Order: sequence, then structure tokens, then C-alpha cells
Amino acid sequence: MTERVREILSCYGSDSPGTLTNLSRLLNHGSLAGTGKLVILPVDQGFEHGPGRSFAPNPPAYDPRYHFELAIEAGCNAYAAPLGFLEAGAREFAGQVPLILKLNDHDVLLEEKDPTQALTGSVRDAIRLGCVGVGFTIYPGSVHRLEMYSQIRALAEEAKQAGLVVVIWSYPRGSGLSKEGETAIDVTAYAAHIAAQLGAHIIKVKLPSAHIEQAAAKKVYEQQSVPVGTLAERVRHVVQATFNGRRVVIFSGGATERDEVVFEEVRAIRDGGGFGSIIGRNSFQRKKPEALKFLRTIMEIYAGTLK
Amino acid sequence: MTERVREILSCYGSDSPGTLTNLSRLLNHGSLAGTGKLVILPVDQGFEHGPGRSFAPNPPAYDPRYHFELAIEAGCNAYAAPLGFLEAGAREFAGQVPLILKLNDHDVLLEEKDPTQALTGSVRDAIRLGCVGVGFTIYPGSVHRLEMYSQIRALAEEAKQAGLVVVIWSYPRGSGLSKEGETAIDVTAYAAHIAAQLGAHIIKVKLPSAHIEQAAAKKVYEQQSVPVGTLAERVRHVVQATFNGRRVVIFSGGATERDEVVFEEVRAIRDGGGFGSIIGRNSFQRKKPEALKFLRTIMEIYAGTLK
Amino acid sequence: MTERVREILSCYGSDSPGTLTNLSRLLNHGSLAGTGKLVILPVDQGFEHGPGRSFAPNPPAYDPRYHFELAIEAGCNAYAAPLGFLEAGAREFAGQVPLILKLNDHDVLLEEKDPTQALTGSVRDAIRLGCVGVGFTIYPGSVHRLEMYSQIRALAEEAKQAGLVVVIWSYPRGSGLSKEGETAIDVTAYAAHIAAQLGAHIIKVKLPSAHIEQAAAKKVYEQQSVPVGTLAERVRHVVQATFNGRRVVIFSGGATERDEVVFEEVRAIRDGGGFGSIIGRNSFQRKKPEALKFLRTIMEIYAGTLK
Amino acid sequence: MTERVREILSCYGSDSPGTLTNLSRLLNHGSLAGTGKLVILPVDQGFEHGPGRSFAPNPPAYDPRYHFELAIEAGCNAYAAPLGFLEAGAREFAGQVPLILKLNDHDVLLEEKDPTQALTGSVRDAIRLGCVGVGFTIYPGSVHRLEMYSQIRALAEEAKQAGLVVVIWSYPRGSGLSKEGETAIDVTAYAAHIAAQLGAHIIKVKLPSAHIEQAAAKKVYEQQSVPVGTLAERVRHVVQATFNGRRVVIFSGGATERDEVVFEEVRAIRDGGGFGSIIGRNSFQRKKPEALKFLRTIMEIYAGTLK
Amino acid sequence: MTERVREILSCYGSDSPGTLTNLSRLLNHGSLAGTGKLVILPVDQGFEHGPGRSFAPNPPAYDPRYHFELAIEAGCNAYAAPLGFLEAGAREFAGQVPLILKLNDHDVLLEEKDPTQALTGSVRDAIRLGCVGVGFTIYPGSVHRLEMYSQIRALAEEAKQAGLVVVIWSYPRGSGLSKEGETAIDVTAYAAHIAAQLGAHIIKVKLPSAHIEQAAAKKVYEQQSVPVGTLAERVRHVVQATFNGRRVVIFSGGATERDEVVFEEVRAIRDGGGFGSIIGRNSFQRKKPEALKFLRTIMEIYAGTLK
Repeated sequence: MTERVREILSCYGSDSPGTLTNLSRLLNHGSLAGTGKLVILPVDQGFEHGPGRSFAPNPPAYDPRYHFELAIEAGCNAYAAPLGFLEAGAREFAGQVPLILKLNDHDVLLEEKDPTQALTGSVRDAIRLGCVGVGFTIYPGSVHRLEMYSQIRALAEEAKQAGLVVVIWSYPRGSGLSKEGETAIDVTAYAAHIAAQLGAHIIKVKLPSAHIEQAAAKKVYEQQSVPVGTLAERVRHVVQATFNGRRVVIFSGGATERDEVVFEEVRAIRDGGGFGSIIGRNSFQRKKPEALKFLRTIMEIYAGTLK
Repeated sequence: MTERVREILSCYGSDSPGTLTNLSRLLNHGSLAGTGKLVILPVDQGFEHGPGRSFAPNPPAYDPRYHFELAIEAGCNAYAAPLGFLEAGAREFAGQVPLILKLNDHDVLLEEKDPTQALTGSVRDAIRLGCVGVGFTIYPGSVHRLEMYSQIRALAEEAKQAGLVVVIWSYPRGSGLSKEGETAIDVTAYAAHIAAQLGAHIIKVKLPSAHIEQAAAKKVYEQQSVPVGTLAERVRHVVQATFNGRRVVIFSGGATERDEVVFEEVRAIRDGGGFGSIIGRNSFQRKKPEALKFLRTIMEIYAGTLK
Repeated sequence: MTERVREILSCYGSDSPGTLTNLSRLLNHGSLAGTGKLVILPVDQGFEHGPGRSFAPNPPAYDPRYHFELAIEAGCNAYAAPLGFLEAGAREFAGQVPLILKLNDHDVLLEEKDPTQALTGSVRDAIRLGCVGVGFTIYPGSVHRLEMYSQIRALAEEAKQAGLVVVIWSYPRGSGLSKEGETAIDVTAYAAHIAAQLGAHIIKVKLPSAHIEQAAAKKVYEQQSVPVGTLAERVRHVVQATFNGRRVVIFSGGATERDEVVFEEVRAIRDGGGFGSIIGRNSFQRKKPEALKFLRTIMEIYAGTLK
Repeated sequence: MTERVREILSCYGSDSPGTLTNLSRLLNHGSLAGTGKLVILPVDQGFEHGPGRSFAPNPPAYDPRYHFELAIEAGCNAYAAPLGFLEAGAREFAGQVPLILKLNDHDVLLEEKDPTQALTGSVRDAIRLGCVGVGFTIYPGSVHRLEMYSQIRALAEEAKQAGLVVVIWSYPRGSGLSKEGETAIDVTAYAAHIAAQLGAHIIKVKLPSAHIEQAAAKKVYEQQSVPVGTLAERVRHVVQATFNGRRVVIFSGGATERDEVVFEEVRAIRDGGGFGSIIGRNSFQRKKPEALKFLRTIMEIYAGTLK
Repeated sequence: MTERVREILSCYGSDSPGTLTNLSRLLNHGSLAGTGKLVILPVDQGFEHGPGRSFAPNPPAYDPRYHFELAIEAGCNAYAAPLGFLEAGAREFAGQVPLILKLNDHDVLLEEKDPTQALTGSVRDAIRLGCVGVGFTIYPGSVHRLEMYSQIRALAEEAKQAGLVVVIWSYPRGSGLSKEGETAIDVTAYAAHIAAQLGAHIIKVKLPSAHIEQAAAKKVYEQQSVPVGTLAERVRHVVQATFNGRRVVIFSGGATERDEVVFEEVRAIRDGGGFGSIIGRNSFQRKKPEALKFLRTIMEIYAGTLK
């Protein structure tokens, strides 16, 4: 047990030894074990965007076993997926990589202005499949957000009683926000803070832009000269908004990007005090050898063995 | 236990021996026992379309016992129906054919743009009636789809705890889709994938057309040159979308067709790696001797004893 | 136990001896005991239409005991009413007539295009009051129909576990149907079939007209030359639609009519193979001696002692 | 135990000895003990209209203890109030006056065309506070009425299992009715009947006007010459509508009136066979000595010691 | 145990010794211990307004431990916050300050005309974290208010069974009210009364203005010459409306103000018989030494050691 992991665990004083055990499994697995940094492989895009859009660029990824193998071989801290994908490999790869069961999902066969998600997994499912934690998406800004908060609150209570780690994907979206506002720095910090207040152990947000969406926030950011000019500064602000670094907050990569762009983002996350990345499409939509190399580079940046 | 059945069962590593037992009952019953192929008789059209439209063409079919007899005599792998129809024969034909209780149904006495279904059976009903599994319909594309996903998720968990097989009928429909889009290849593959992610053991979809509905999907299908020109290719794509062949996916026949058309479709399903057919109206809307001959031909195509 | 009752009971192979016992109590009570025919007295009009409209024409009927006495003296097979009316006489008349507790009701203090009903009784209430069964109304054609189906499905499961008989009043109504369509032969047969699929032991519908409402049904009725010209033929078609005579289906009388019209209808029900009548307003809205004479005539027609 | 109370209790043959015990406590308490008549003090106006409007005219009434004292000193049969008011005195005045806990309430900080109420108390609360019964308001005529009926049905079942008396306040209101229709004689009788059918032991309605709201009712009232010209006749009709006198029905006073008007109404209730009054604002919005004198006069009219 | 605390506890005669124990912990903690006055530190603004707007003016306040320390050092009676903030310090500061878990919260990433809140904590969470009580916000005037009342009623019953104190934040808001009406004296008194009727032990409202919102209330206030001209008179009226001083009612400070304005308000609360203040933004949005001085002054005013 490294000092850094011990320090992170010490921030979760209200959690049971069971939950701390699972949280330390996440932090102590894979290439970044013990560093306090995380890289998680999430594969819910088949559900969220459709199987063709997700897996046709790299057909072996249609097979659910592929993602277990990718996460294991790349030395990811964990693999997160919906029920079906986890059921399809949990026995075969039991004990080889920490698993996070996504408890809700959404498809795009209907476009909604104010999206919500379906409950697609349960805490009991997560226990049955040997997961270390559960994941849940909220959409701050949607008219359905309050119902989503209530759902995850109840599920989080159940998960904690079962010693599981609670991961919240906080994605601002819906009629309360402009398109640009979905990744605005004030909105991202707010969304991350809500997730922390809802009792998340790990929070996942998108990398924020320098845009400030809400007038009342803009006034304060300007008065107080909150530094949000660089990506590293914005990451630092989000870390601050998640209990001043006392909650693990990680950042998602979004659509496929040029590698160097991703690496620059990872450096900003590292420099801003972020805890890591959750990288889906950039990982599994390329051939495995390339994906492994790509993920290894990211982990080296986090580990500090690469600038 | 044939090698092929053993191989199929091996894909369901997260399921209990109880569920595998019922799944093997399905796979090892009737004319296609052991082949890994299935032909299921579904009779919910009385509820879904009305008794006159369904049974007037072959009046003995008004009697619920008729369908048990038809499934048994034809050597179908299973008979699937709503509560009332199963209650009306489950004792008389106990043990003679695997039964699947449909847990939800819908009627057409009201036309809705965004349909949903009523819960018309329970897992406890299925246990009471000696069923091997339960069936549930979802309508991806409907505004009610997320609620339907949540329902089947909860019912599937309960069914799996009871050792039952979960079959999902995935029928794209609703305001998210054009009429043509309901059977588009991208939408069908997506709908099949959602059912798999929701934890279905067996997935039933309609045979897809070559139409691609969603622009974002179209782009990828074209970029990656996904072959969807022939029906067999489209079946193969759907099989890929259901965990690359690691979930049983079967195809429905739709409205009454000329026999040769159906046989051609069955050959395409076979050649594309599909697991079988679920054939209602084409079976019970004709005289029984003709239906038996018709089903026997289909089974021979699947068994490979007929080209 | 007559041969006919034994034959009817044999159609309910999935029901417990408890439910069969209560079903046989219904069939073996009163003037028509053992004939397989039923006449049931229903008195929910106080709730459904208001007490003045219902009972002012025969003021003794304001007293809940009146209806118990009427059902007993007339030799009806059962008396069906909402909670309050049954509570007000169940002790005094315990064991003198089989009781059916209506589990839902509706008033007309608000007119709705798409009606639904309130839950006004429970299975536990029915047990407490010594009932042989429970009644439930569905409105096929209403936007609320699917919710109603789900409700009765759950209540029916509970009732069957308690050994009670499930009676479904299936009244097509709502924005899916024209006014004429509410009693159309295709719609009535469909509504009766839905009730049977939902697990009803006894189904109650209105006498159908020769009108055919739905185009898709009309096409089949004409192609197959389904005979629906006479009332007896239409009754026969409804019997067919309720599992080909393997479910008890009875018919309601509707608003007060000239006696001879009602007797003609009863002859049609008898000749068409219907199982009997449920007659409210025509019974209790006249002086008791006249009501007894009226009901006796109907029973004699069913018993075959009167043409 | 007087003959009259024994007679009233005999109407509740389906209730447990526990409930009859509590009902007899109501009937045998206070100045009217044993007469079969009741005067109940209800104080929910703080919630329903606001504290200023309710208590400023007589400021001691802001204190929840005031109403216990008033009910005790005046010899009322019971005191009915929401949770907070009962909690604030139930220990201090334990055993001194039968209590009825109102289970739902509504405020006027928002005007709705179709009102409903919030659940503000539970059967367990009533048990904890030593109540003899529970009260519940329904709004026949509102689009929410069916949900309200379903709620009280469930709560009444629970209350009866706990041996409590069920009191239903039936106040027609909502988009199904004209303003005048809310107190129309046909609507009042209908609303009282619905409450009785829902299983109420005691029903509370407003004094009806001679207006007849519904065309279908008007036709019958005229055909049958139902006498509704005088207030006493209208009370008699409502008594008839509540199971012909076999359910306790009491009448509310409404807004503050000149005393002589109220006394005239009480005489009409008495002469029409009503069971009593529930009098809030006319009691507690005046100085206590005047209130006691006022209530004493009413009780003397009911007791027959005053014309 | 001072006489005043004993007196306050005596108003809660229906509560368990467990709840009284927790209530006395609140009253006997900190600088105001035993005085019957309370100053509570609430920190939910991160959730309600966003972390930047809340904590950027005093960045140490991003750290959840800061608020525990502030409440402890200032000698507040209690610290109230959402789940995440309490979880992040409850172990470290166990037993050092009474905690109140807010059970519901709301964000401003979407503006609604008729707001409601998400359930973000449970009674079981409060027990787990060692809290003395739970807090819940209602919005009288919103179309969602009745649902909110029903929620807190159920949660309050559960909390009382667990011996917890129930605090209701009653904030008039929504389409039933004008902007000015949200703090009108009649509306504030009404909102406070509703909270008391819902069973709150402690009620929190905003300081009311002299505006009277509702016409029906205005008429009575004028007729009865209810004194509401000064702030102290308005506080007195609110105290009257909360069971004439038999429920603890405290007042919030609102947005940051000049200190002298706040002190004047505190004097008015004291002089009007209010029980204390709940002060968030004015406390934590300044440097800690200044906050401690500020809070100490307020407590001295309440304690009477400062005019």
C-alpha cells in the first residue's frame, strides 16, 4: 500500500472497510497501481451509439471478450460496461481486472431534448458478477435530472451497503443548457460537485472548455479571478469543485482524436491534479497492438515516466 | 449433449446451472434437438391483432390446445404465448414441449405513435406453469423504450434467479424512426445489441432490409464497407451485433408469405449464421397437415438435410 | 357435481383446487345450479351512475340488504358489488349467495374521453368478506388500457393464489374507438379474447352488434365469411374468441329494456352457446316481485324449461 | 350502551370488534353520548386556508392546545386535525376526547382547477397518537379523484386492520362540475354514496342546495318526484344515498354564519335524519365562552332538549 | 438542563425520548447551549448554486472539512449539509458538532417555474453518519408542493422512529405566487404553519416582508389589525403561526449582506421571539477569523450579552 493510495483512502472516512477494499483494488491494479492515478476502459458505446458505429472500425471488438482482454493487457485499472457485456466475460476473466457495472444506459434511436436513461443493471447484478463498483450517469441540465439524482442516491446507498465503489458519470445536457454550455467550465465544475454531493467515490466528467455558461457564475469567476485559461487550470478547478481533491475525479476522452491531442490532454489532467482518464473509443476503435501502445503512452504520462 | 450445444452454453458463463439447464432443454427438444438451431412457435396474435384476424383463417386455432399440439407434432423447440393461452393447456401438455411465457403484450384497439406494452404475466406465473423461459417485447425508438428496458432488466434479474431463460423480442418502432427504419439493417443490429446488453439469452428480431436509417451509422457502414447487400450478409451483421455469435439470435417471419419466400429467408438465416426462426402466422393460419409440412421443410433447411 | 360443471372445470387445468372449488360454488348455486349456465346480479350502478339515477326508481334498493335478498330470492348464481355494498351485508347474509367483490370502479362526475377506474377493493378485502371471486373492469380502446391490463394481471395472480375466481368486465371504450365501435362484433370478440389472455376465469362483455369496426378485421371477416348476421351467431363468435368455449363468457343487459327484448337476447345467448347473463338495472329498478318473475323467466330460458 | 348506538353499530357487520369499539367511543363520548348524534370539532383550516385567516379572529386558537380544550369543554364527540396539531396535544390530553387524524390536506398557496391533496399522516401515526379514527378528503369531480379513491381504499384497509374508524370528507370539486354543482343535491348524494362504497364508516358532506347538476340525474329526480325542496328533504335524500341510513353521515357548516342560520341548518339535519355536524370555523373563530354556548345550543337541538 | 430547554422539550409531547435526546443535543451544544436559541451553519450552496459561486470568494471552503471546523470553532448549535459534504467529515469530526443531513436538494442548471427537489439522502444515511436530525425543503406555491409534503411526511415518520429531529426548510416559490409574494408575511406565516402541521420539530423560513400576498388573507389581517409593520412584529406573527411558540422556528439570512444589516435582523428575531438563525453564505464566504467574529456577535445578541 503506497502512501498516496493510503492518503486517497483516508478521504473516504464514512465508507465501510468493504468499500475501501474495493476502492484500493481499483487503485492498486494495473500499470498505474499505487500511483493514485487511474485509466479505466469503458465500453458502453454499443448501447449508447449502436454496435455498427462502435465496433465496425475494429470488428474484433464486437466480441465482448475483446474488451476484457484489452483492459487486462493494457494494464487498465478497471473495465466498465453494461450488464450484457460484463455477463459475457465475467466468469472467463474472473479476478483478472476490476469490473464496474454500468447501472443505467441510453440509446440514440430517439433524439430527446431532455434525455434520461434506463436502469439496465442492479447492485445485485454487480455483486453476482464480482464487480468492485457500479457506474451511473446523470444529466445535469435535463428536466429529468432530479429523478436521476434520486435514483443514484438510492442505488449508491445500496451499493455502499454491499461494499461497492460508486462511480458517477456527470454529463451536463438538456434544455437548461446551450450546446456550448455542456462543457463550460462553470457547468463542468458544478456537475462534478453535484456528483460528489450525491455520494460518489469516483466522478467522471468531460474535459471543460474555457466558456462560462451561467451569468451568475460568470460574475463570481471574474470578481474572484478564478484561473480557467488553460486546460490544466480548468482541471484544477474541477478538482477543487470535487471537495478540493478529496474525491477521485477522472476525465473522458470523447470522440476519436489524433493521439497527440489526447496526450496533451492527459498532460493537462496530470498537471491540473486530475486523477486520470476514462478512454473508450480512442482505445477499442483501433487495432489492439496500436491500442496497447496508445494506452501505454497515456499511463506513462500519468506515471511520470514520460513527460 | 452435442458439441454445438455445449459450445452455445459455454457463452453464458454468468448464468446459473438452473438457467443453463432450461436453455439446454430448449436446444435439445424437437426435430432440431442438438443442432444448435431453433424453431419456436409463438402465438400472441390473438392479443396483438385480435382473435378474428388471427384465427378465422383456420378456426381450430381458436382452441388454445391446438397450438400446443401443433408445436409438439411439428417438433418445435418451444411454444411461446401469453398467460391465458398457456394456462389453458399447461397441465394437459405438461412436459411435452418447452414453454415460454410472454410477460408483456399490446393490442391494436388504439393506435399509438409511440407504443408500449402491458405487463400480462409474471416470473411467478412462468414458474407455476412449468415454463423454461419468459419473453418480453421492447420497442427501441419509442418514447417509452427506456421504461421498457428498465422493466425487462428487473424481470430478467428475477427470471435468472429462478433459473429461467430470458427471451427479448426487440422491435424498433416509434417516433424516433421512419416506417422504413423499423427494419433497417443498422436499426435492427442496434435493437439486437440493446437486447443483448439488457441480459437476454435469446434475442428475436425481424429480418432486416438493406436500408440504413441513421446518418451517423450510414457514415460508418460506408467507411468500413460493412457488407449488408444480401440477406445472409445482413443476418451475419446482426449475429455480429449480438456479441459476435455469443448470444442466440433468431428471426421472425412476419405476415403470411408464399412458402418459397419463407424458405429462401430461412436459407439466408442459416447461411448468415443465425440461430433459427420464430414462426407464428405462417404456421397456425393454415390447416394443420400443411403447417406440419411447412415447418418440417424449414427444420430440414436448418438441419442441413435440405438445401 | 353434474357432467357439464365437471366439463367446465376441466378447462381450468392451471388453477388450484381452491379456485376450482370457488368456481364450482358459482356454478352450483341457485336456480341454474349444475346447468353450466349463470345469472349474476351486479349492483355497482350507485357508484357508476349515482344513487339517485340508480335507486330512485325503486327506493328500497337504496338499502344494501335489498340486493342480497334479491339475489338470494331470485336464485342468482352470485351477487357482485363494490366494497361498501358488500361490507354492508356480508355478515348478515353470510353463506347464502356467492359474492364477487368488484375491485375497481368509476363515477361519472367527470366525463373523460379515455376513462380508467379507481382501485376500490383488494383481494384481501374479498377474502375478509367471504367472496368466491373478484371482478375487475378493463376499457380496451382507452389510452389507459395497458395500465389496466397490468393492474388486473397482478391482482389476478394474487386472487388465484388465494383460491378466488377472477371475473373481468371487458368494456371497449376510449379514443381508439367510434361510439358504434364500442359494441362492434370484432371489437367485442377482441375485448373478450384480451380478458381471457389476461387470465380471467369468467368474462363479461356487452351483447355485440353486427358492425365491424376495424378495417383489418373487416377484411378477414369477409374473406373467411365469419357468420355474424344474427345475435346468436355473434354470441357464438365471442364464445369462439374466448378460447373456443373453454372460458365462461357472459353477457350484460345494458339499460332498462322491454322484458320481451331481454328474453329474446337471452335466447340468443343460449342458442349461441353463451354461458349466461349479468343483469343489473333490469332487475333492481323494478319492484321486487316483478324482478323475481323477470329473473325467473330468464333462468327458465337458460335451463331450457322455457323456449 | 343505548339502543340507538347498538342499532348503529349493527350496521357495520363486516367490521372487527376493534373498529366497533372505536366507533362506539365516538358515539358514547361528550354531551351527545348515546344519542346516536355527533358533533365533531375539525381544525384543519390553518393548513387549508392559512393560519392568519383561520386564527387571527381569535388568537388563542393559534395554540394547538386550545382546540383540545374547546372540544373537551364543549362535549364534542371528537376532535379532528392534521398531524402537527394532534402531535402538539395528544399526550397532554390523552384519553380526554376521541381523536381523528386527518391523513391528507391541501393548501391554497396555489389555485388549481382540479385539486388533489397531499398525504400528511399515516395510519401508524394515528395509532401512535391514540386516535379512534382517520379522516381523508376526496374531491369527486376532479381529474385526480380516481387516484384519491384508490389512496383512501388502501388506507381504509390498513385502518380497519388496526381497528380504526374511517371518516371520509367528500367534497365535490374540479373540472367535472360547475361552481353551483359542487353543492347540488344530486352531486352531494352521489359524493356521499361514493364515500360509502369506498368503505367509510362516517361520511362528511356539505349541506346540499336544491340545484340538480347532471342532466341524466335531473331526468330521474323529476320522473320519480324525489323530494328535494326543503333542506330537511335534501338531508333525508343524502341519508338515503348513504345506504339508506346504514352509514353515519354528518354535515359541515362552511364559512362563519349568523348563529340562527346555523341552528336552522342543524334542525334540518336533525329532521332529515342526519347524524350530526362537523363545525370548525363557527366554533373556534369566536371567544371560547361564546363558542361553548354556541355548540351547546347545537347539541341541545340534536338531543331534542331544544326545538 | 436549563429551565428554558426543559420548557421547549415539553412542547414535543408526542415524540420519543430518543428524539427529545437529539433535540436537547441541538439546544445544549455550542455558545448558545441552554439558552433556547440556535445558530445553525448550513452549507448546501455548492449543490444549490454551484461550487464556484459558493466557494470561490473564500477558497478554503471548497474543502468539506472547512465547514465542520467553522461550525465547531464558532460554537454553532449544528451543521447542516447534503450527503457528500457530511460523508467527507463525519468520521474525522465525530461527536464534535451536531449534524443535520439534508435529505433533498436542487440545482440551478435548469430554471423551472415550479421547482421541486431531488431526494439526495435517506434517514438511514443520517443514522449511519451519526446525525441528530434530518432536513427537508418544501416549496409551498409550486405545483409539486403536495408531492413534497407527502415525501417529507413519510420521511419524518421514519426519522421519528429512529429518534431523529425533523427540520423543514419552508420556501414559498412557484406559479402560485408573485416574486414579492415569496417573502410576504402572510405567505411566510402560512409556509411555517404548513411545516409545523407536517410534523416538523424545527422550522426554517426566510425573514418576511410587510407585503401581504393573498387577498383573502389581507382582508383578515386588516380586519383584525394583525401587527406586521416592524420586522420584530412579523417574526412574532410567524412564531404565533408555528403553534404559538410551541415549535422551534428559525430564520435564514439570504444573500451576503452588510454585517450591521444582519445584526439588526438578528435583534428583530430575538425581540420577536424567534428561536434563532441559520446562516450560510454570510459565514463561509469570508475569511474564517472574520466569520468567527461575525458569528460570535450574532450569538451574543441572541444570548443577550450584546444589545
